[in-house]
Amino acid sequence: MTLYFEDIEVGHTRDCGSVTVTREDIVRFAERYDPQPFHLSEEAASETMYGGLIASGWQTAALTARLLVESYMNETASAGGRGIDALRWHAPVRPGDTLSVELEVLEKRPDDRGAFGHTRVGVTTTNGDGETVCTMEGLGMVKCRKSAENEAI
Amino acid sequence: MTLYFEDIEVGHTRDCGSVTVTREDIVRFAERYDPQPFHLSEEAASETMYGGLIASGWQTAALTARLLVESYMNETASAGGRGIDALRWHAPVRPGDTLSVELEVLEKRPDDRGAFGHTRVGVTTTNGDGETVCTMEGLGMVKCRKSAENEAI
Repeated sequence: MTLYFEDIEVGHTRDCGSVTVTREDIVRFAERYDPQPFHLSEEAASETMYGGLIASGWQTAALTARLLVESYMNETASAGGRGIDALRWHAPVRPGDTLSVELEVLEKRPDDRGAFGHTRVGVTTTNGDGETVCTMEGLGMVKCRKSAENEAI
Repeated sequence: MTLYFEDIEVGHTRDCGSVTVTREDIVRFAERYDPQPFHLSEEAASETMYGGLIASGWQTAALTARLLVESYMNETASAGGRGIDALRWHAPVRPGDTLSVELEVLEKRPDDRGAFGHTRVGVTTTNGDGETVCTMEGLGMVKCRKSAENEAI
């Protein structure tokens, strides 16, 4: 069942599942996207203030996105993401950490054009110890059922 | 030469270079981090509102981060990123697009503890046509020279 804008309820919360981050994942991502010493190798990282390898904050955000997509966005009539507000990295993510994601719908607002509406969801990513590692607010667009029906005509 | 907090100047702008996004990059990133149809294959994407393959917004942000790291952050005495404000995806990024990144230092503020300071940088990512595809404000921490000298003692 696809969720349209009309079906989205402010206050709705969802457990979006979890994913484990490997050392190999961290290094591969960093080589391509975030080549800072504390993301690239244990050896280089051991000499930094982090004392060991940590994941790029962008990788934590992207893994969070994956869980959101798999558990929520691919079930909604998403018309794309507009952006992110207040992305914060609260604690480092290390090899072997299992990240879990929860979302809460904070706001919904129809668009003047009527074909879709705007949503704001609060997203919290925690590690295996229940410590919050990342928070953000995602701004999305979701098609209205009425508009989707018109498309089908 | 390493830039310390004392060296950071509000209003400073920098061209952070460019990177070209390939079809293979887009699909590989999407399979791991953002498995939505318009990121996964030309075939699936052709049936969506985008009419063809587009990069994950998270990949655009991460490629932007790479250019920032290579041209700026690896030259500063960075003590890590705290987060991102007002990340916005303005236009789709397609296979073959060359992304260019510019930054401007918007704000600097000493930390009460004195060992480092806070910075806010505005970041703009444009495509080969000069169209803005992504903007964000990055919140960083940069070590003070005095503190770094104390560490060395």
